[in-house]
Amino acid sequence: MKHKNIMKSAALVTLLSSAPAMADWQALPDVAPAPKNNPTTEAKVTLGKMLFMDPRFSSTGTVSCNSCHNVMEGGDDSRTFSMGVHGKTGGRNAPTVWNAAFHSVQFWDGRADLLEDQAKGPVTNPVEMGVSEIEQAMNKVRAIPGYKPYFEKAFGNDSMTVDNAARAVAAFERTLITPDSPYDRYVKGDKKAMTAQQVRGMDTFASTGCNSCHSGAAFNGPEMAFGQGFYAKFPTFDNAYVKKYDLATDKGREEATGKAADAHMFRVSTLRNITDTAPYFHNGAVNNLSEAVRVMAKSQLNKDLSDADVKDIVSFLGALTGVYPEITMPRLPATSGHSLVADK
Amino acid sequence: MKHKNIMKSAALVTLLSSAPAMADWQALPDVAPAPKNNPTTEAKVTLGKMLFMDPRFSSTGTVSCNSCHNVMEGGDDSRTFSMGVHGKTGGRNAPTVWNAAFHSVQFWDGRADLLEDQAKGPVTNPVEMGVSEIEQAMNKVRAIPGYKPYFEKAFGNDSMTVDNAARAVAAFERTLITPDSPYDRYVKGDKKAMTAQQVRGMDTFASTGCNSCHSGAAFNGPEMAFGQGFYAKFPTFDNAYVKKYDLATDKGREEATGKAADAHMFRVSTLRNITDTAPYFHNGAVNNLSEAVRVMAKSQLNKDLSDADVKDIVSFLGALTGVYPEITMPRLPATSGHSLVADK
Repeated sequence: MKHKNIMKSAALVTLLSSAPAMADWQALPDVAPAPKNNPTTEAKVTLGKMLFMDPRFSSTGTVSCNSCHNVMEGGDDSRTFSMGVHGKTGGRNAPTVWNAAFHSVQFWDGRADLLEDQAKGPVTNPVEMGVSEIEQAMNKVRAIPGYKPYFEKAFGNDSMTVDNAARAVAAFERTLITPDSPYDRYVKGDKKAMTAQQVRGMDTFASTGCNSCHSGAAFNGPEMAFGQGFYAKFPTFDNAYVKKYDLATDKGREEATGKAADAHMFRVSTLRNITDTAPYFHNGAVNNLSEAVRVMAKSQLNKDLSDADVKDIVSFLGALTGVYPEITMPRLPATSGHSLVADK
Repeated sequence: MKHKNIMKSAALVTLLSSAPAMADWQALPDVAPAPKNNPTTEAKVTLGKMLFMDPRFSSTGTVSCNSCHNVMEGGDDSRTFSMGVHGKTGGRNAPTVWNAAFHSVQFWDGRADLLEDQAKGPVTNPVEMGVSEIEQAMNKVRAIPGYKPYFEKAFGNDSMTVDNAARAVAAFERTLITPDSPYDRYVKGDKKAMTAQQVRGMDTFASTGCNSCHSGAAFNGPEMAFGQGFYAKFPTFDNAYVKKYDLATDKGREEATGKAADAHMFRVSTLRNITDTAPYFHNGAVNNLSEAVRVMAKSQLNKDLSDADVKDIVSFLGALTGVYPEITMPRLPATSGHSLVADK
């Protein structure tokens, strides 16, 4: 059975019972789902955008969320591994923040259930924002008088907490979605929205079996409850690419859970805007979308694609690049007459 | 004569002949001056904003103009010394880009005549963007297909050159001005725009002699032709602050010209938005605006200010913080399916 690469049994059952021979093509919803305890409000989004863009909470004052998840680009940093404070680099490629709201778990290994949890991680990561304790970062937020009214508007009085800061960032991130791609317009009925090659690539994508994992509106698997991840073993099949691109060194979810059963399991990533998020894979080892398609077909489906099929699929993937909404720069409130990040 | 701290004789003559006993208070113009060969156009501003925000031309892909001149903040980075690629730091505090267009020379030592010249400097500075040759950075711009139409619209066909990139960045920077501060509204006739303390501070500012250098609409000296700098020796008078804050190690303009006569000469900086640009001075050694006022009075005018006078002057300086215009984030064009800054 070709679905043996799917780990979570609940997900597996869903997939086996519902996957039609023809793919169930879905357009991206206009609104991203939010957890019940953090409905998205304009006040949270406004605050969250400020916090997302503000580098002053990092240990050097130079790294913001946006440094590695640049919303002016594809929501990542174009690098193999992100570069945090003091030029340090991590060991995984930065996933895009665009449409991250449609993932039911966060990080490559799904170690965070929600965007709210994810947002706290990089702050204390020594190779990202490099702060020892997250409260230290929050104390800097509290030291900026201009943030207080934004917290009050979003969360009420005495609300300047780490959890609320994370809720605000998550609320902002839930607005970072890119509907209205040629693909979306196509599946909504505009048959001229995609080129003939893109339509051909869409068929090849499905007939090859890519959508056995990359299904759903965000091409990251079936819709699941927050915290329930949709994982796949990568690589599933051994082949020359595995060595060439060092695909099997990272143990994926096992490094988060410690369970051997989670070895090499990774969250199935969205393919939305995939043209804008090179390089590819958890280790950023493949800097060419055509090659990434070949690697996936071979490593996950044990198939050798023809050059024509690769070109068609890449053309189709280009149709998944949506409309990035216009974002106004936030004004980051000053600390009048002194700096929080100067040496003295 | 108290103006002996002014170096350029042309500037000195201007100052002596025109400085009134009462200061000539000027509001900030609504438009910044531009050199004749680079009139500001919307197409240049649009392109310049993209280039200004794009980190992909730095050697690591992580440092843009905005990294150290953050327009979401006070146009600087709040740090003592800026941090460029690989966590390297320079030796001077990043001047604000806000209202930099009103400076007739650029950099602390005036070594660039125009914003167009300044814009090229950080690209090849090993502790800033860290590119060996500026054409390397330009080749990255040229490798991004989405930039071409913006260059064509701004400068015509076959216009993807370093000089035009710098012209675009300069054009964008000339839009970064902050009129309508309480001070501006006050001098335009709204006598309620400043508080009583701010008005008192304004008088003290003038009677102390601060405006012998910090005159004009941008509080950076008299209006001068591009390339003609208005410099002052800092420190002029020796005192305990000089040692405490290491003010005399940096030889200022001498380090650019090699002339002993330029020793410790620095461009007189704008005081606009000074509340938002801590820490202060060329070496960022003073992280407190009140202390910076005390240091300036003692080091430049040999005066010891009372605490009340310092408070009044700081209050007045707060009235120089203007209205930052709203800026829409540019969309940085992708290189489809591959990255310019990945390791491979």
